[in-house]
Amino acid sequence: MTQYVYAFADADGSDRDRFGGKGAGLAEMTRIGLRVPPGFIVTTEACRHTIREGTVPDDLWDQVDDALARLEKETDRTFGGGPAPLLVSVRSGAKFSMPGMMDTVLNLGLNDDLVAVAAEWADDPHFAWDVYRRFLQMYGHVVLDVPSTPFETVLAELRRRRGVPDDSRLTADDLAEAARRFHDIIRETTGEDVPEDPRTQLREAITAVFDSWNNDRARRYRKLNGIPDDLGTAANVQMMVFGDLGEDSGTGVCFTRNPSTGEPVPFGDYLPNAQGEDVVAGIRNTLTLDDLARLHPELHTELLSVMQTLERHYRDMCDIEFTIERGTLWILQTRVGKRTAAAAVRIAVDMAAEGLIEPEEAVMRVEPATLEQLERPRIDDQTAPEPLVVGVGASPGAAQGEAIFDADRAEAAAAEGRRVILVRPETTPDDIGGMAAAEGILTSQGGKTSHAAVVARGMGKPAVTGAAEMKVHLEAKVARVGRVTIAEGDPITIDGTTGRVFLGLLPLVEPTETPELEKLLSWADGFRTMGVRANADLPEDAASARRAGAEGIGLARTEHMFLGERLQTVQDIILAEDDDRRRAGLEELRAAQVDDFEGLLEAMDGLPVIVRLLDPPLHEFLPSRLEIERRMVELAKAGKSTTELEQLERAVAKWAEDNPMLGLRGVRLGLMVHDLYRIQVEAAMEAVIRRLDAGGDPRLEIMIPLVATAEELRRMKTMVDEVVALASERAGRDLHVPVGTMIELPRAALTAAEIAEVAEFFSFGTNDLTQMTFGLSRDDAEGLFLRDYLERGILRFDPFNTIDVAGVGRLVRIAVEEGRRANPDLQVGVCGEHGGDPDSIRFFQEVGIDYVSCSPPRVHVARLAAAQTALAARSVTSD
Amino acid sequence: MTQYVYAFADADGSDRDRFGGKGAGLAEMTRIGLRVPPGFIVTTEACRHTIREGTVPDDLWDQVDDALARLEKETDRTFGGGPAPLLVSVRSGAKFSMPGMMDTVLNLGLNDDLVAVAAEWADDPHFAWDVYRRFLQMYGHVVLDVPSTPFETVLAELRRRRGVPDDSRLTADDLAEAARRFHDIIRETTGEDVPEDPRTQLREAITAVFDSWNNDRARRYRKLNGIPDDLGTAANVQMMVFGDLGEDSGTGVCFTRNPSTGEPVPFGDYLPNAQGEDVVAGIRNTLTLDDLARLHPELHTELLSVMQTLERHYRDMCDIEFTIERGTLWILQTRVGKRTAAAAVRIAVDMAAEGLIEPEEAVMRVEPATLEQLERPRIDDQTAPEPLVVGVGASPGAAQGEAIFDADRAEAAAAEGRRVILVRPETTPDDIGGMAAAEGILTSQGGKTSHAAVVARGMGKPAVTGAAEMKVHLEAKVARVGRVTIAEGDPITIDGTTGRVFLGLLPLVEPTETPELEKLLSWADGFRTMGVRANADLPEDAASARRAGAEGIGLARTEHMFLGERLQTVQDIILAEDDDRRRAGLEELRAAQVDDFEGLLEAMDGLPVIVRLLDPPLHEFLPSRLEIERRMVELAKAGKSTTELEQLERAVAKWAEDNPMLGLRGVRLGLMVHDLYRIQVEAAMEAVIRRLDAGGDPRLEIMIPLVATAEELRRMKTMVDEVVALASERAGRDLHVPVGTMIELPRAALTAAEIAEVAEFFSFGTNDLTQMTFGLSRDDAEGLFLRDYLERGILRFDPFNTIDVAGVGRLVRIAVEEGRRANPDLQVGVCGEHGGDPDSIRFFQEVGIDYVSCSPPRVHVARLAAAQTALAARSVTSD
Repeated sequence: MTQYVYAFADADGSDRDRFGGKGAGLAEMTRIGLRVPPGFIVTTEACRHTIREGTVPDDLWDQVDDALARLEKETDRTFGGGPAPLLVSVRSGAKFSMPGMMDTVLNLGLNDDLVAVAAEWADDPHFAWDVYRRFLQMYGHVVLDVPSTPFETVLAELRRRRGVPDDSRLTADDLAEAARRFHDIIRETTGEDVPEDPRTQLREAITAVFDSWNNDRARRYRKLNGIPDDLGTAANVQMMVFGDLGEDSGTGVCFTRNPSTGEPVPFGDYLPNAQGEDVVAGIRNTLTLDDLARLHPELHTELLSVMQTLERHYRDMCDIEFTIERGTLWILQTRVGKRTAAAAVRIAVDMAAEGLIEPEEAVMRVEPATLEQLERPRIDDQTAPEPLVVGVGASPGAAQGEAIFDADRAEAAAAEGRRVILVRPETTPDDIGGMAAAEGILTSQGGKTSHAAVVARGMGKPAVTGAAEMKVHLEAKVARVGRVTIAEGDPITIDGTTGRVFLGLLPLVEPTETPELEKLLSWADGFRTMGVRANADLPEDAASARRAGAEGIGLARTEHMFLGERLQTVQDIILAEDDDRRRAGLEELRAAQVDDFEGLLEAMDGLPVIVRLLDPPLHEFLPSRLEIERRMVELAKAGKSTTELEQLERAVAKWAEDNPMLGLRGVRLGLMVHDLYRIQVEAAMEAVIRRLDAGGDPRLEIMIPLVATAEELRRMKTMVDEVVALASERAGRDLHVPVGTMIELPRAALTAAEIAEVAEFFSFGTNDLTQMTFGLSRDDAEGLFLRDYLERGILRFDPFNTIDVAGVGRLVRIAVEEGRRANPDLQVGVCGEHGGDPDSIRFFQEVGIDYVSCSPPRVHVARLAAAQTALAARSVTSD
Repeated sequence: MTQYVYAFADADGSDRDRFGGKGAGLAEMTRIGLRVPPGFIVTTEACRHTIREGTVPDDLWDQVDDALARLEKETDRTFGGGPAPLLVSVRSGAKFSMPGMMDTVLNLGLNDDLVAVAAEWADDPHFAWDVYRRFLQMYGHVVLDVPSTPFETVLAELRRRRGVPDDSRLTADDLAEAARRFHDIIRETTGEDVPEDPRTQLREAITAVFDSWNNDRARRYRKLNGIPDDLGTAANVQMMVFGDLGEDSGTGVCFTRNPSTGEPVPFGDYLPNAQGEDVVAGIRNTLTLDDLARLHPELHTELLSVMQTLERHYRDMCDIEFTIERGTLWILQTRVGKRTAAAAVRIAVDMAAEGLIEPEEAVMRVEPATLEQLERPRIDDQTAPEPLVVGVGASPGAAQGEAIFDADRAEAAAAEGRRVILVRPETTPDDIGGMAAAEGILTSQGGKTSHAAVVARGMGKPAVTGAAEMKVHLEAKVARVGRVTIAEGDPITIDGTTGRVFLGLLPLVEPTETPELEKLLSWADGFRTMGVRANADLPEDAASARRAGAEGIGLARTEHMFLGERLQTVQDIILAEDDDRRRAGLEELRAAQVDDFEGLLEAMDGLPVIVRLLDPPLHEFLPSRLEIERRMVELAKAGKSTTELEQLERAVAKWAEDNPMLGLRGVRLGLMVHDLYRIQVEAAMEAVIRRLDAGGDPRLEIMIPLVATAEELRRMKTMVDEVVALASERAGRDLHVPVGTMIELPRAALTAAEIAEVAEFFSFGTNDLTQMTFGLSRDDAEGLFLRDYLERGILRFDPFNTIDVAGVGRLVRIAVEEGRRANPDLQVGVCGEHGGDPDSIRFFQEVGIDYVSCSPPRVHVARLAAAQTALAARSVTSD
């Protein structure tokens, strides 16, 4: 016979699988001698059986009856009888906390006859009727599925009649009338009565709790939080204690430390003469723990001692529910408390300093992804209004300013010292100047790897992309969301962490770098085995990444060096028909880039700087054909000549591609556009020499993008080696510059052994690698089907956030293993978006990547995640 | 000491590595007792040494002198002396024939003094001076690098002075003058004289032959023909025999069978009183072998006997050079003769019938790719003029008709019974009607997998794409190539085999299916282990593929079912805003497709028909944004309203994609566009039931395109199974319809084990798989860099023609192995372009593909190639 029912005193407080989190906590607190109202747990196994078979296990009710009998004996009360009626709560409690998602029935054990017995026992008819009407209301709603509104309507009517602001001021008669009318409501809605027999009530309540495992809310919550669907919930049956038995009673919630700041000071709410649900309902204002100390100093001291016991016991900040019944403190529940990112850091570091946990555990305690929140100003969620629209949180942090719909005007406004949010349908390289000048970027199209998103993250600027409900009308200089219009110059606030967009300037919370964070990260650095570098294109970004702890630049893109005021030169080169003009343009570009490279090398002096030669297709530097045609429509409408534009269109058409992502870009440019890559390397080498002359320690490395064959890389390496040899001659010393390649095409990964014979390093461009492996363009897919795929569960995760281990990851593994076998000195890094994703970092550690490179604001995240994966690997090894 | 020099009699006639093809042939003929002018071979090893070290091996000239001495003795002549001077030829000869690419010096062994000796020996001063002037001319050109023109000018002047049409009619004095003036030309051009000493001449000539291994022509030829650069050439030094010693002398070339038709009748040219080079020069008209029989019956008989000996010896059709010197027949050279595809088939089958070779060898003898030429009318290369322009040979065969620049006008013209070539910059699905009506298609853009190319191949229509020098001006209805204009209606001829385009209607050679081809293919079917199916979308194509021996349809695309008069319905569905209209459109489409499927199933009754559900992105069924904008420019210019088009543009913009190849297509459509795939399956099942009712044996299979995850396929399979179950109910019997997937994304290949748990078959779409693996769109790449990559050797082969074994092939191998492991019943085929490529078929055989599927005109090719790979595998196994 399987045992499905365990008294708290008999259950194993560490077996959350069987007893759920709540049940395990109750068992544990009972075991360590805290004053917990006694009760028993119906196991998750019983729930799973019930769901599977459609009925409870054969002898479940017998076991429940036995447990009830024991409970009656222990509490000296009678379930369904007098003189002291035993009332119980029936609460769900799964392995993983799913707050508010499943059902609970309180105050169970009365019927119309027993109310009088209870009134006598408590010497308080008001209390007895209040408890009974609460039970009817909850049972009716939870077990019998009656909507809440009619119950609330009755209470509101009674309050109005009596002229009181809350239910606690209703009289016993009022409450008796409420109970009567609740019976009517239930009967009218369901055709049934609430069972008279409390034992039947209990059985129905337990079954309802089990059923609630599969309600829509719970399923959705599990899906969002990655909780398996087959765990089931326990049902906890516990003697009720009452906080609403007068002024020497009350109820509260407390945290052993401040969950918002992490400060090591207890923190909580207390509501006198109330049941727990009244705290949640928020009708009456709660008191603080200091108030409790004033009202009941000895109970306050007892509570502090309980807190200390629990924190020591669980070695973590705890969240505790308690009730005071006529001067006696009861602990109803405890769990590890939820906290903000800032609090998590402080608590972990403080506890390690206090000796409560080891530094290793402190490092494991903080969720790496949350550190990104600490880098940016943020919106105060306590005071934030409803957002106007929600898009994709593409680059975290909050930003605010005037909405400006054009990059040039944004630049002009910023030059006047105004704060600007650049708002566009989508951004293009033409908008770079405006993006750099703006506080943040908002687009109606694109997703997390759209141009706007990638550039914003690179710049460390908040961005919201794909706010599809917002229509941007560029000509009219307005954006519309439903009936709301944002005109140019209107103040808005965006939250790039959550994707929310607000009208007006919301108060922002500024970030502060705390000594605790510094401590935590220095511990992390001691544990991790994988390097952390940053993707940074500009000296400022490189410097900030270095301050954040980056050990070099894993990816310095050079696209920006071809934009801004140089764009005209670049267009001249592309469209040049005579070679002299082309050469002159190239020379101009070469000279202009030297400063760019010098700045990067200076900011990362002594650390490696991997420069990626130009990657995007040439037509990205030209106006689009569609754009030209649109201008032609305008000219034609105005009766003006379109000849000049027609010429331009023909020139542009030469470079147009149906699928630019699969076209003339990366190393293909280097091979086809004579001298383009050479001038980049020349400029970089000139910067190296300047840095050497200045006494610096420049560590340039050159990376070739989009290599599909070893031969492509070989030819480019020959060119780089030539330029480096010339520079070495000039410098009078041997300037070794490692040459490596992006691994971002499936073929490069599959032929890594060949490529590694030429390459000194690999850097996985996991964005493109994911796009090619899945055969999908993220930008196109996000608008058309990717979100739908995720919502419908066709994809279980977004492969652009977390590396797809089965497909893309397999290519990474092949390339690392075979590349290293061919070239044991090969350095292997990751510079795609996944380089800053903790889940992906775990995989990278496993396959033996040397370093990850991420955007500057994710450097902290990566340092911590790398430490966690190293510690996890260590514990696996030592197991 | 290494032996570098071998007499013909001592050399091993099977060692082509050492002696080259020509030397080995001379040795072999000497060995079997044919009358070959004696001589010796300087080995390829000597050549390699000379190239490597920059100088000939130390004792080479000693070895040459020894061989010369032996030759003098054997021939009873004296090199560099009288009374019978020994003249020799010095010919290159590498392992693989490189006709005309390397150097040869003839008539070597005279100087100004020895001419008189030669004249006396031959009793013919004219002959002696002619031989000498020939030597000077050739030595000057080949060894001393003097251009040919000045020599030709002197001869032309002498002919003019003498009033004769060819050099043979010049007098001995004329030729002596020529020799004198040749000396002058050489001295003036080079500052050097031709060495007096014939031994020096010989050494220089051998060195020149070695050097010619590395001339530009030879290098280019080797690259184009895949001949390694490090083989080197032998130099063959052979006693000259003279066909120009009077009317009882002559020279000729003959084939043991007709190299054009394969008819088992000797075939050749004969030129009396001439040297071999005169035949090549084509100044005088040659005679036939019948003429030789008339002139010299006994020599003709002897030649026939030599031919028979050689054909028996080499067990193949031979190409033989011979010279008759004063009534004696000498054999100068032999090799296996080049032949047309038709001749290759006939010769192989005839020889097997004659018992000369086994059927296995006959099957191995024919190059599979050449069979495609036999399927189509072709241009007679003997009479073809210079092409106007050369593009990409995208779909083989010749076609001719009026150039028409618009699909609708092409359809109209064809309806009037006119023959049409559709000429477009590129084609789109809108052009399908016109393409179907045209004899052939010509585009200025795109390559071998452009829309035009793929559709044309599917239709079995000749096409030339990417004729980039041709500019098509649609509005003006003209195309221009340089100064030549093709107006609408002008007759043109295109050759889809070679990519040539001609003005006017050239005479075409019609194809004929011969009994020999049928025999050869039936042998091939007996040997091959891999199935051969066809890619066919229309009943006619399916029927013709079946006639060609296809064992089913490996890929029936359904795109065409959404075009033509149905396009409007499709557009309505895509743009529909109310659901009723959408449903009505879908129902209309469903009903319309039933006939299409029925036709296919009927044409392939009893054989599998794999239907691929809709693949292309929806916007391919809509006008492009660029097109709409262009129309707007036109309207605006004409002062008309653009409002309606603006509305259309907004609707179209919703579906626009930056990279459509990576967007909403394939199974993504099936999942996102409700019921789109369902109506296709319903229509197919209705066709199945109709065929069953008609007593047929329909073998429908359903294929889902562009699957990246097992889950995508699982959902679609569930839908198909539902529809099939309903149809089974209707039919009153179990209609099992296998469901499988394209493997065309790297991820599908990498996760094949998972996918194979759902799929009943895999079909590799190697075109898309190649595009994704390399990260390149073939259409974009061909215009912008692919050709350049191939020319510069960055890619050694075109991965769209021949499967890239290292990258794409590795994915295929992974998918086959892991797919089969997960599902041992898995059927695995290939339906990409590579399915018809012999080199790729070899790889598919090796990895264990069950069948290849190719376009109907390549079915013969695939049958033969599959047989060859099976035979090759057999011989490897038995080795």
